[in-house]
Amino acid sequence: MNPVLRQLGRRLRLGVVGGGAGSFIGPVHRTAARLDDRFEVVAGVLSSDAERSRAQGVAIGLAPERAYADWRTMLETERARPDGIDVVAVMTPNHLHFPVADAALDAGFDVVCDKPLAMTSAEAIALVRKVAATGLVFCTTYNYSQYPMVRQARALVASGRIGAVRQIHLEYVQGHAAARDTAETAAWRHDPARSGQSLILGDIGTHAQHLGAYVSGLDLEAVLAELATTVPGRASDDYAALLLHWAGGALGTLWVTNAAAGAEHGLSIRIFGAEGGLEWQQEQPNHLLHRRRGGFAELQTRRLHGALEPLAEHATRLEIGHPEGYQEAFASLYRDVADAVVARRTGRAVEPLALDFPTVLDGARGIRFIEAAVESSRTGSWVDCRLDPC
Amino acid sequence: MNPVLRQLGRRLRLGVVGGGAGSFIGPVHRTAARLDDRFEVVAGVLSSDAERSRAQGVAIGLAPERAYADWRTMLETERARPDGIDVVAVMTPNHLHFPVADAALDAGFDVVCDKPLAMTSAEAIALVRKVAATGLVFCTTYNYSQYPMVRQARALVASGRIGAVRQIHLEYVQGHAAARDTAETAAWRHDPARSGQSLILGDIGTHAQHLGAYVSGLDLEAVLAELATTVPGRASDDYAALLLHWAGGALGTLWVTNAAAGAEHGLSIRIFGAEGGLEWQQEQPNHLLHRRRGGFAELQTRRLHGALEPLAEHATRLEIGHPEGYQEAFASLYRDVADAVVARRTGRAVEPLALDFPTVLDGARGIRFIEAAVESSRTGSWVDCRLDPC
Amino acid sequence: MNPVLRQLGRRLRLGVVGGGAGSFIGPVHRTAARLDDRFEVVAGVLSSDAERSRAQGVAIGLAPERAYADWRTMLETERARPDGIDVVAVMTPNHLHFPVADAALDAGFDVVCDKPLAMTSAEAIALVRKVAATGLVFCTTYNYSQYPMVRQARALVASGRIGAVRQIHLEYVQGHAAARDTAETAAWRHDPARSGQSLILGDIGTHAQHLGAYVSGLDLEAVLAELATTVPGRASDDYAALLLHWAGGALGTLWVTNAAAGAEHGLSIRIFGAEGGLEWQQEQPNHLLHRRRGGFAELQTRRLHGALEPLAEHATRLEIGHPEGYQEAFASLYRDVADAVVARRTGRAVEPLALDFPTVLDGARGIRFIEAAVESSRTGSWVDCRLDPC
Amino acid sequence: MNPVLRQLGRRLRLGVVGGGAGSFIGPVHRTAARLDDRFEVVAGVLSSDAERSRAQGVAIGLAPERAYADWRTMLETERARPDGIDVVAVMTPNHLHFPVADAALDAGFDVVCDKPLAMTSAEAIALVRKVAATGLVFCTTYNYSQYPMVRQARALVASGRIGAVRQIHLEYVQGHAAARDTAETAAWRHDPARSGQSLILGDIGTHAQHLGAYVSGLDLEAVLAELATTVPGRASDDYAALLLHWAGGALGTLWVTNAAAGAEHGLSIRIFGAEGGLEWQQEQPNHLLHRRRGGFAELQTRRLHGALEPLAEHATRLEIGHPEGYQEAFASLYRDVADAVVARRTGRAVEPLALDFPTVLDGARGIRFIEAAVESSRTGSWVDCRLDPC
Repeated sequence: MNPVLRQLGRRLRLGVVGGGAGSFIGPVHRTAARLDDRFEVVAGVLSSDAERSRAQGVAIGLAPERAYADWRTMLETERARPDGIDVVAVMTPNHLHFPVADAALDAGFDVVCDKPLAMTSAEAIALVRKVAATGLVFCTTYNYSQYPMVRQARALVASGRIGAVRQIHLEYVQGHAAARDTAETAAWRHDPARSGQSLILGDIGTHAQHLGAYVSGLDLEAVLAELATTVPGRASDDYAALLLHWAGGALGTLWVTNAAAGAEHGLSIRIFGAEGGLEWQQEQPNHLLHRRRGGFAELQTRRLHGALEPLAEHATRLEIGHPEGYQEAFASLYRDVADAVVARRTGRAVEPLALDFPTVLDGARGIRFIEAAVESSRTGSWVDCRLDPC
Repeated sequence: MNPVLRQLGRRLRLGVVGGGAGSFIGPVHRTAARLDDRFEVVAGVLSSDAERSRAQGVAIGLAPERAYADWRTMLETERARPDGIDVVAVMTPNHLHFPVADAALDAGFDVVCDKPLAMTSAEAIALVRKVAATGLVFCTTYNYSQYPMVRQARALVASGRIGAVRQIHLEYVQGHAAARDTAETAAWRHDPARSGQSLILGDIGTHAQHLGAYVSGLDLEAVLAELATTVPGRASDDYAALLLHWAGGALGTLWVTNAAAGAEHGLSIRIFGAEGGLEWQQEQPNHLLHRRRGGFAELQTRRLHGALEPLAEHATRLEIGHPEGYQEAFASLYRDVADAVVARRTGRAVEPLALDFPTVLDGARGIRFIEAAVESSRTGSWVDCRLDPC
Repeated sequence: MNPVLRQLGRRLRLGVVGGGAGSFIGPVHRTAARLDDRFEVVAGVLSSDAERSRAQGVAIGLAPERAYADWRTMLETERARPDGIDVVAVMTPNHLHFPVADAALDAGFDVVCDKPLAMTSAEAIALVRKVAATGLVFCTTYNYSQYPMVRQARALVASGRIGAVRQIHLEYVQGHAAARDTAETAAWRHDPARSGQSLILGDIGTHAQHLGAYVSGLDLEAVLAELATTVPGRASDDYAALLLHWAGGALGTLWVTNAAAGAEHGLSIRIFGAEGGLEWQQEQPNHLLHRRRGGFAELQTRRLHGALEPLAEHATRLEIGHPEGYQEAFASLYRDVADAVVARRTGRAVEPLALDFPTVLDGARGIRFIEAAVESSRTGSWVDCRLDPC
Repeated sequence: MNPVLRQLGRRLRLGVVGGGAGSFIGPVHRTAARLDDRFEVVAGVLSSDAERSRAQGVAIGLAPERAYADWRTMLETERARPDGIDVVAVMTPNHLHFPVADAALDAGFDVVCDKPLAMTSAEAIALVRKVAATGLVFCTTYNYSQYPMVRQARALVASGRIGAVRQIHLEYVQGHAAARDTAETAAWRHDPARSGQSLILGDIGTHAQHLGAYVSGLDLEAVLAELATTVPGRASDDYAALLLHWAGGALGTLWVTNAAAGAEHGLSIRIFGAEGGLEWQQEQPNHLLHRRRGGFAELQTRRLHGALEPLAEHATRLEIGHPEGYQEAFASLYRDVADAVVARRTGRAVEPLALDFPTVLDGARGIRFIEAAVESSRTGSWVDCRLDPC
């Protein structure tokens, strides 16, 4: 048992909402929670169908009485158990993120919640306020920010290594939806009432926007966007291109699509300042290219001890040259959330490096970004996307 | 002597305007003309200063009497010589492209002219009309279109290999101007009267625009642009980001800058259709990635005999695995121009594959693109960039 | 709980030997066992020092009475418990692999054992015979063979996609030991009595040899080797270069070192047959290059559903484009071992794809390879390295 | 005309032997000679058949009387002409390299000669002595040594940037001969009397050996080699794998083949010293990876002014990011030879950086290397490959 958990004397107990049969993200969450041995998944609601929820809960190893039929029952019952869950993880279709997370906070649970955080920025701001009021831990799963070399990039920018930031270019280019939709496509994804104002931005665009904000340390201030459907006969959008204005005057672009035939999952950032630039791509996550004005570029490598920034070192586990990937980065969210939860409960301080995970405020900024982009695409003009003060 | 030249019985005679001491592009032109042994450089004007022009002409090996003091004298004198030049190559600062090319056509010479073709689309259209009226050969040096794997991409798109085109994303990202300008920066580059309405678009942005048009076979119809100066204290623009609408409904983006600290010369295209996508980068020009929907990507390779499209095979010289680069692609322009000039003079047909070089019309479209982008950046709205019928 | 475990009604119980404080491989084993939720680590011996063993056992979360002082006690005590361990995992310094694994088999446990399997091929053959006699499950942790794209390569070779195999070239190039040894270097590594006949081959060379055998499906028959110490003042070898003869006439090379200054963990295979070749590198494990004679190369990608071979698909968890790495491949060993153990205990058949993990016989072949290479380096001549029939 | 030629007042006059119809290397030589405008090809023998030689000479633009029927006539006639050739370039099948080069020296010409220099080291040593005796310029076309980033590597090693050299690993992996030979295969290539003792080593293996010597600045001292024919039914060898001992104790390997199905022209070097390592691949020639012990790797780039070593800067022409390739590197040989020839004739000093081209001595070392490898493969033991003192 790791030193932090030893303060508590046990692993944390996790209740999951969503992630049943056919879900990609469900196993990712559960494996992430397990990977660093700080959580046990002990309760869950795996489906919106009561029967399926119970059966699938048992199938992932829950005790039958903790494989709940619906999430309200789970929250209520677990709150009453002496050995009840500590943390709720929300991985439902988009429209349920807000109500479940909101109720979990009301029930006094710390929360891990998938993006997009809510359907409107009003909802998102309500969550921000509730988290502030309760002091509970709340993590929005902008998981890509936990890759060691993304954190290295953030630390390099923060320390001035590339100088004043001038340009930030973001991409998230997938190909899985390049063909026309079929009966197999998850229905909620193409129903705006359940997926949100923009499927493509809620699904992956907001990951790229957060990546830009996280690495640069800057807020996004305004967007000029074109959202579109490129595959004929599709109900949802599958393409967005945006011009970006960042705080401090940096300019940039964002291109996101899931309809680029043959593409994989091309999330990337290229950021340039007065003295150099950084490039990172999710498909090769263990390296970071550091371009230097007037000098040769440096190919930075995960887990080169002594050369990595502490923020990056904190989030890596294996030796140099042994690749880490998506699952490890996702696990780092859970590891840090565990530390934060234990600290809150025990009143002890937590290692500051463990607190650099995306919060409810990051989630709310993502919702405001989506709203602004949708409005810009409709009006053809720049829209301010700063979050109203709360 | 190659079969085409044998029809003429001699090498073609080239007169150059521009490209004197300190010029990057001058030696590129002269080497390109020499590389395939179809041209001799026999006359030239190397500088706007008469003395320097004569001295530098002799320095590159011209006979003293053909190292002219000014371009008007060269055109007039060479026209009168029995062994006068056949072709005029224009590689001056931007503002002189139009008057020199225009006068060369008037003098009856075939022309190779650098981009941007002119300062306004009115001038460019005048050139288009003059070329049509005279029947002379006119090549605008969009040299990147001559890379074998760019031509391979064009052929694959034309043959439907990636299906209906849906997205075209273009970049030209350089870093050489990331620092503040110094006394060494060529003065004309930062003087709009000599560089044109947008330095960054005239210098490199129009290369990327042409690359998109050439590979896709589509016209660019409208742009929404942001032009900016990111390096403090600079007179010219050094950044542009554009949203693009292509004929047939394809969407896209274009990002161009010379101020990305530490970047090299990152010209690239990514084009996606219903069935697949293609990616090409100038920094690794001998390969082309062909992504395929539902299948593995293919890494296409220059000079794999029997597997390359004829359009690509036409423009390559060396064996597979022996890299060709920028100079070879530039030389392909001259090689094809030579064939076209000989065909015009002898009245014989030319190999159709040799006629796929950028023309005066391509140059004019580039000027219209620049004008539209400048207007869009000023007004914040979409601007039609189709060339008026001429 | 996954379908296989459901047959047993519980997770498997694992006892670990080795992997205490400061060990790299200890956490890798324990995380691997946990990742797919088929094992609980419930007993262990973490150090050869009794006090440290108990303290470190508790530190990783063991109940105090199952944090044993020595491995003999663990085997004996656990055998007697009704809830005793099912499987023993051996991750000690090299010289203890054999005695612990041997005793674990004697005690009736299934075994996961690190390579090199033993100090001599006589020991290794004894283990092979004991496994055959007992019918117990025995996995040697040649973990790299579990990478999805390594398995894809194996399946492509087996199905004849590259034709008759002609050349196999292997590398394992690390840089961590490029500097002179210091007090921090683990002492056993530089003591042949504990590390074995060749540190560099036992440590990483045998991984490369197994990779070649696994992908090609061929046995290694003879070696001509040069072993050397390139860093002055070092007691162990840090370099080996070998010429290889494979069954069926294929030729090849193997280069292994941990003293290539600045290198990461460059394990790779390049295999060529009459019709094509395959290239895989551990540093970019999610792709496999399939070269094709007379055609373009294909860049094969992990988790492209429908395009991957079943053997590869079996060992992957995440979507295309979401990188998997070393830890996931290691976990696949444990997942398949779990399935094999449950099948042995329940008498039910196991999915054949789950049985393709490295066995005691693979481990024994590795020991014979090391012995032959050491002899060849001493004599300067080819040495047969086939395992004597057993 | 460049400053060096201006001392002479004209371009140098080149006579070529070999390189007629169907030859790959003939056009490469002629383009290389022309590229930097220091040579005119004015005489030649293009075929061993008199008629074809004359016709093909005219076809490449020679005056009919200088399109000779045989090389002896050319040497004799040109020696007598007042405007006769200055330099002889030899690009015949292998067995004629020696007699033509030898006779050219006798006739007082400077020589550019393809590798392998001769059929035996006795012949090669005779050439070395004749060059020393005559003071003529002699270049062996180890053209890969002229790539800017290869020269950068040499300069970095020489200046101690990677510390004492410990390992040198070389490859030249082609795929063009992976299929069985057909009638189209050049007959001389499979006739040892014309190709030499080992086709694969004479053709490409000696390029890799020279690359190792050039970059490291070390002589190769001994080899342990396996030469083989991997494609059934072939008369020549198509595979070699060698263990290498370099002067000063560095170890290494060399793998060369033209039968790796689907491979391109994978010439590469990886060299490691006490402080770091360098990696260069011909397929991406504009970059050099500089690994650093304990630090991040640096990706060095052609033509980053001020950051490149003078030796590398000397051999590059274009701006950073504009790729140069094989033809440019080959041209650098001719450019430097021109400078050396002019210096010899005018008695003036030449820029020292221009003198770093491969000489007759390098060519002779290559022949000794081939001989030693052939002997080692036959005897199965290490063979000293140092050139006898001459």
